[in-house]
Amino acid sequence: MYEDRVRCAALRSKITTAAEAARLVRNGMRVGASGFTRAGDTKAVPIELARRARDESEPLRITLMTGASLGHDIDRMLTEAGVLERRLPFQADPTLRRAINSGEVMFVDQHLSETVEMLRANLLGKLDLAIIEAAAITETGGIVPTTSVGNSASFAILAEKVIIELNLAQPAALEGMHDIWIPGRRPRREPLPIVHVQDRIGTPTIEIAPEKIAAIVITNEADSPSTVLPADEETALIAGHLIEFLQHEVKRGRMPAQLPPLQAGIGTIANAVLSGFAHSPFEALTMYSEVLQDSTFDLIDAGKIVFASGSSITLSAPRQAQVLAELDRYRDKLVLRPQEVSNHPEVIRRLGLIALNTALECDIYGNVNSTHVGGTHMMNGIGGSGDFARNAACAIFATKSMAKEGRISSIVPMVPHVDHNEHDVDVIVTEQGLADLRGLAPRERATLVIEHCAHPRYRDVLREYYRDALAYGGQTPHDLGNAFAMYTAYKETGSMLGHR
Amino acid sequence: MYEDRVRCAALRSKITTAAEAARLVRNGMRVGASGFTRAGDTKAVPIELARRARDESEPLRITLMTGASLGHDIDRMLTEAGVLERRLPFQADPTLRRAINSGEVMFVDQHLSETVEMLRANLLGKLDLAIIEAAAITETGGIVPTTSVGNSASFAILAEKVIIELNLAQPAALEGMHDIWIPGRRPRREPLPIVHVQDRIGTPTIEIAPEKIAAIVITNEADSPSTVLPADEETALIAGHLIEFLQHEVKRGRMPAQLPPLQAGIGTIANAVLSGFAHSPFEALTMYSEVLQDSTFDLIDAGKIVFASGSSITLSAPRQAQVLAELDRYRDKLVLRPQEVSNHPEVIRRLGLIALNTALECDIYGNVNSTHVGGTHMMNGIGGSGDFARNAACAIFATKSMAKEGRISSIVPMVPHVDHNEHDVDVIVTEQGLADLRGLAPRERATLVIEHCAHPRYRDVLREYYRDALAYGGQTPHDLGNAFAMYTAYKETGSMLGHR
Repeated sequence: MYEDRVRCAALRSKITTAAEAARLVRNGMRVGASGFTRAGDTKAVPIELARRARDESEPLRITLMTGASLGHDIDRMLTEAGVLERRLPFQADPTLRRAINSGEVMFVDQHLSETVEMLRANLLGKLDLAIIEAAAITETGGIVPTTSVGNSASFAILAEKVIIELNLAQPAALEGMHDIWIPGRRPRREPLPIVHVQDRIGTPTIEIAPEKIAAIVITNEADSPSTVLPADEETALIAGHLIEFLQHEVKRGRMPAQLPPLQAGIGTIANAVLSGFAHSPFEALTMYSEVLQDSTFDLIDAGKIVFASGSSITLSAPRQAQVLAELDRYRDKLVLRPQEVSNHPEVIRRLGLIALNTALECDIYGNVNSTHVGGTHMMNGIGGSGDFARNAACAIFATKSMAKEGRISSIVPMVPHVDHNEHDVDVIVTEQGLADLRGLAPRERATLVIEHCAHPRYRDVLREYYRDALAYGGQTPHDLGNAFAMYTAYKETGSMLGHR
Repeated sequence: MYEDRVRCAALRSKITTAAEAARLVRNGMRVGASGFTRAGDTKAVPIELARRARDESEPLRITLMTGASLGHDIDRMLTEAGVLERRLPFQADPTLRRAINSGEVMFVDQHLSETVEMLRANLLGKLDLAIIEAAAITETGGIVPTTSVGNSASFAILAEKVIIELNLAQPAALEGMHDIWIPGRRPRREPLPIVHVQDRIGTPTIEIAPEKIAAIVITNEADSPSTVLPADEETALIAGHLIEFLQHEVKRGRMPAQLPPLQAGIGTIANAVLSGFAHSPFEALTMYSEVLQDSTFDLIDAGKIVFASGSSITLSAPRQAQVLAELDRYRDKLVLRPQEVSNHPEVIRRLGLIALNTALECDIYGNVNSTHVGGTHMMNGIGGSGDFARNAACAIFATKSMAKEGRISSIVPMVPHVDHNEHDVDVIVTEQGLADLRGLAPRERATLVIEHCAHPRYRDVLREYYRDALAYGGQTPHDLGNAFAMYTAYKETGSMLGHR
């Protein structure tokens, strides 16, 4: 049975049902599960866990850590079954989001590179169990991850016991596409030796003592497809501004003609903007990113991207079918790494990335809110945006200038939640234009952001705010009594323009 | 003349007066000057420049970049003479501060590790001139820095011309205490090879083509002494809470008994708290920090610190006299590095530092304001606090719980300027107590910060805010209409308690 996938014969006796494996989870446990932006999540055991919690009367509440977001409505089912006591470091599920925002689930929103660093330092408690999706187990017990690495390697290494979901729907050809490297224990930690995006520094499999593997569950189900929307007129304009900016940078000798490696955050805007590079003059591009989306494969197919390093592959349904069927075409152009490596400040700074991430909203001084709707309600989480923006050579935040049919401006006087502050934000771009904030003082930035990035409909209200704020003086002029007036107007009138 | 200090004979012909050297500065230039937290600044040419600007009718306005803050009232004199058009990346002068806050001087507040990175990438324009204090020039033209390295090495390398201030008051024995290492140009940048605080990876001198040295000015003046205040009852309480916390961390196996290397920010509180380690059980401590203050030398003398790496030595007047007279005692226990190395995220993450920095104020959710008084007015700048806090294994922010005789609470509902956000702040400590925020959701943090860190006088108003904010819901509950009510109360009544 499954000889080609469970090549370590001694482990075949561990094959069991998802329901049996789910029994290994006990109330109060800390569980680490694979899955990063819907890719490579475990598809059976968490669902059995939700079923068990619903059906049994005993309390079953756990701390669930993942790489990033999960597919297959797992977070929804676990939330509905009341299983989630604490969740980290990222999520993107509407039901879980509601539970987080009502205070039912404690959500720890973390830089994606830091979760396993904290776990390793014993700061998040002992990890009781890891549940990891695999494409195969090698002769010596090495675990071959699937479409994501995420935190799976460290979860498997640090957990007391490991459950493997061996997913037959994930092609065996995934073997060899991963590069697993784990930092040494301090105080004897050596440099992380990546100096080019394509460098391989580790092993192709996750190496743990095979006796830690407590159960193997066979599954046969594809990843949930990506939820990104297609490019539209506004994302095309954003891409246009950005490509013009980068051409200008090359012309001024600030960037090499080939461009530094690119990073692009998860989501519709970053994906669409990256797609715009297909029509750019840039050639021989590389990526050092976390999620590889449709746009990456579009650019590989177009001959624009020559190599992409990531932590997961998250694709639309048709792209997923095509890429997984033709993995050999992409084999020498891809590597999947642990998210602590893909998002490591050391490598990001060394390579000098161009980092493109999505802002929920930006303020006139260049502070960015990536997470909190209205300053209070969690959307998804900071993800890797902080890992990249802090250390990239050029940190770009993109957003459409308005949301909700124009009732919300994405450019505001003061963001009510700061994920990336003025020290880390180099460029803001909307469909209206681009503001290059580098080397500028806050007063200089304000005018640029208002005139280049805000929607014309909101420019007057922003100009007025800034003009009035100047009376209060300071490095960063603000009228604290009115800094959030646009949010109050939205609450009261349904539009940030209020009664204008 | 000065054969022992200007050992490169060909350069002796460049010796000139400060007034002559100052003539090399022309209107519109970008100038990089040595100096980091008052240490190793140039003491003659900038002052002549201010004099010239006052006395001559021609416009003379420049962009001045330094390592960090300067002594000798240089920033005051340059401001009064109207010389400063743009200033980066840090300052601590009351006159300059006023000019920044009134919008007369454009101040670019940067992470201290990033200025020369941006300069090297051609993002801040061409550097016309470097003015560097030296203790000696070697036979081959190598520049021996004095009590700071700061950005001096990269300024000298990148500038078109270099002025040296050879300061006879700085002991010749400083030679050999520096370790100059500059990252390679991307895309061929190698890892930064420091794996232990005492590692030496570069050269003891700044190596540039000697023909770039356009003038040498002889000075004979000590560094301005440190302005830190002595420890008091409250800083002693903060130190006590912190040492108790660290002992607890060791006991729980989260930190080694020797503790990871320490970083401590500039200023009274961090210096005083570090001094508190003299009475702790910790031994064989090391530092990987930016400024080495009195406390570092107290702990070296007490046998508590075995090695300290920094970018500058900033001491009180008596300590300065003693340390500089007895440098050989400290020679094997110290190294001074470029600030881009002392503050490099790569090394900070690898070594797993304990980073101790001062907060101006913190909010109940763990966001920290380090720079903007009242959310608008610049104090000094973010300095290295962001470099350290983001990548330290444990990022601690210390503040007294109240300022202005209790009329201001340092714990507020929402900070009106965010330098370090909830993702980067691990621990907040005041004289009232310590809040360990790691692995907690914002709602959990709020109660801890209010009950452990806020002054009892302000706990009721904070509890009320939080209770009312809960009605608005969310991951981070806030009532945006009242988030800054304590600031309004202060403005209206002179106290954040308002009319209570």
